[in-house]
Amino acid sequence: MKLLVVGSVAFDAIETPFGKTDKILGGAATYIGITSSILGVKSGIVSVVGGDFPQEYLDKFTNRDVNIEGIEIVKEGKTFFWAGKYHNDLNTRDTLATEVNVLENFDPKIPDSMQDAEILLLGNLHPGVQLSVLEKMNQRPKLVILDTMNFWMDSAMDILKDMIAKTDVISINDEEARQLSGEYSLVKAAKKIHTMGPEYVIIKKGEHGALLFHDNKVFAIPALPLEEVFDPTGAGDTFAGGFAAYLAKKSKFDFETMKSALIVGSAMASFTVEKFGTERIEEVNEADISKRLEQFKELTTFNVELQ
Amino acid sequence: MKLLVVGSVAFDAIETPFGKTDKILGGAATYIGITSSILGVKSGIVSVVGGDFPQEYLDKFTNRDVNIEGIEIVKEGKTFFWAGKYHNDLNTRDTLATEVNVLENFDPKIPDSMQDAEILLLGNLHPGVQLSVLEKMNQRPKLVILDTMNFWMDSAMDILKDMIAKTDVISINDEEARQLSGEYSLVKAAKKIHTMGPEYVIIKKGEHGALLFHDNKVFAIPALPLEEVFDPTGAGDTFAGGFAAYLAKKSKFDFETMKSALIVGSAMASFTVEKFGTERIEEVNEADISKRLEQFKELTTFNVELQ
Repeated sequence: MKLLVVGSVAFDAIETPFGKTDKILGGAATYIGITSSILGVKSGIVSVVGGDFPQEYLDKFTNRDVNIEGIEIVKEGKTFFWAGKYHNDLNTRDTLATEVNVLENFDPKIPDSMQDAEILLLGNLHPGVQLSVLEKMNQRPKLVILDTMNFWMDSAMDILKDMIAKTDVISINDEEARQLSGEYSLVKAAKKIHTMGPEYVIIKKGEHGALLFHDNKVFAIPALPLEEVFDPTGAGDTFAGGFAAYLAKKSKFDFETMKSALIVGSAMASFTVEKFGTERIEEVNEADISKRLEQFKELTTFNVELQ
Repeated sequence: MKLLVVGSVAFDAIETPFGKTDKILGGAATYIGITSSILGVKSGIVSVVGGDFPQEYLDKFTNRDVNIEGIEIVKEGKTFFWAGKYHNDLNTRDTLATEVNVLENFDPKIPDSMQDAEILLLGNLHPGVQLSVLEKMNQRPKLVILDTMNFWMDSAMDILKDMIAKTDVISINDEEARQLSGEYSLVKAAKKIHTMGPEYVIIKKGEHGALLFHDNKVFAIPALPLEEVFDPTGAGDTFAGGFAAYLAKKSKFDFETMKSALIVGSAMASFTVEKFGTERIEEVNEADISKRLEQFKELTTFNVELQ
C-alpha cells in the first residue's frame, strides 16, 4: 500500500447552468482514490458510509484495485450528502443541503493491510479525527499531507494547530492561509505556517492555480485556462489525489518532486471539471494525461535572453 | 527610434499603509520610458504637461536618453494629477483626486524623429486620441500595442472598437476582457477579442499574473510572490514597458518572443512595487534584472516523468 486516504465517501447532488444530477457518487476520498488508480498507484480508503450506499459504487473502487477494507458500512445509517447549486460564473455556489449523517460520529479504523502506507493523506475532517488517525498508525507514514478549511479554524483552532504541528504538507486556500497566519502577504503567511510545523505549504487559488512554499523557495502552478468549466465539484480533491499519487509513484518527497506532483494534480483536476462528478476522470487514459501535461509545459515554458 | 510611447506624464500623490508622498513623478509614459531605458532600448514619449512640470523631471528622461521632443509643455496649463490611498491589502484603493488638466485637450503631435518607430505603444487614453496617433504616423509601425480600460468601454465603445480593430496586441484586465467580449470564460473572451482585430490578447490578473492568447495557444505568466508590496502604483505600466522594450530589443514579434517579453515585464514590475513611484525602478541595474529573471525560472520550471 502506497497511499492511505482518510476522507469522505459521499453522495452529491449538483446543479450547474448546464444541467443537474440526482444523488451521484462524491466525496474527497472518492476523487482521490480514483485519481490514484488512474495514475497506477495502489491506494486504500478509510471512510464511513450508510446502508443506503449502493454496491455498484463500492464496485467502482474494487474494480480499480482501490482497497476499501477501511470503508465502514453503518447499515442503519445514511451516507453523507451534499447538494449545491453553482452560479453562472461557476466560481461561486450555494449549498442547498448538507446532511452529515454517519460522518458525524466517524471513528476511523485502520486495517492492517494499510498500516504500511508510505503516504497518509488526511482529507478535510475534524482535526481531532485527523489526529486520531495518526495515533492509530503503528508507525508514522513517511509523509503526512493535511487538507483542512476555515470551518475548523473557526471552531477547533487549538486542536487543528496540534494536527498541523504533525503535518509535512498542508494544503489550504489563500483566504485560509491568511486566516491561519494573520498575514496578508502569502509569502509571509507561508513563512509563519512553516513555523507551525509543515515543511511544505500549498496555497490554492482556484482558477488562478496554486503556490508551493518550501525553505524560502516558491513554485507557481497555473491552472489550465479552460474554454468551458462544466462542473467544478471535486476539482480540489482530484488535485490533491494527483499530487499524492505522483509522490507515491516516485517515493520521493523533495521540492523538485513536489513541483511535478502539483502539475500532475492540476492536470488531473482539469479533467474533472469537464463533466459532472467523477464521470470525466473515470474515462481518462494515459494518452489524455500525457497530452495535458504537454499543454502545461507549453503554458509555462519560456526562454529569456536579455542580450 | 525603436519604441514610441503615447501616454500620460503626470503627478501622483500616493498614500499606502507604509507612508505617503507629496506630488511625485508619475504617469504611464514615465514608467514605460524609464523601463525601456533600463533595458537599453531607445524610446520616445509623446505627451503633454503643464507649466508646473519641473525641469528636474524632464532631465530624468533626457539623462536616460529618452526622447522627449514629443512632450508638449502648455505653459499656462497644469499637469495631470492623481491622488490615491491604498487600503491595507494594497489590492484596492480609493481615488482621492483626479485633475485631468492639460490632458483634457491632448492633441498628440508626432515629431519627425519618432516617425520611424518600429513599435507604437498606446497608453490608456481616449480611444479617439489613440486613433488620431495612428493617423498621424507616415507609415504604420510594425507593431501596435494598445492599453485601455473599462472607462472607455462604458463611455466610447464604438470608437474603442475602431481602435481595437487596428491593434496587434491588446492589454486589458480580466474583468475588462469579460466586459468587452460578453464572455465569462477567459479562453472564450480571448477568442472573441481576436475576431475584433488583435492577434495577441494579454489578460492581466494583478497579483495572479497574466495570460497571453494567440492563435489557439495560451501562455500563463505568474506574478513573483513578494513578501512585501510597498506601493503598487505604476506596476501595470512598468509591465507594459518591459514587455514592449524587450520586443523592441529583439525586433521579433512572434509568440515565443512575446512570452519572454511578458516575463521581462513581470520581472520589471516586481521592482516598481518595492518603493514609492519610480524610486526603485530608477536604481535597478542589469545584475538585479538577471537575478530576478532567474527567480522567474525557478518559480515556473518543472519536469514531470509519468513512468
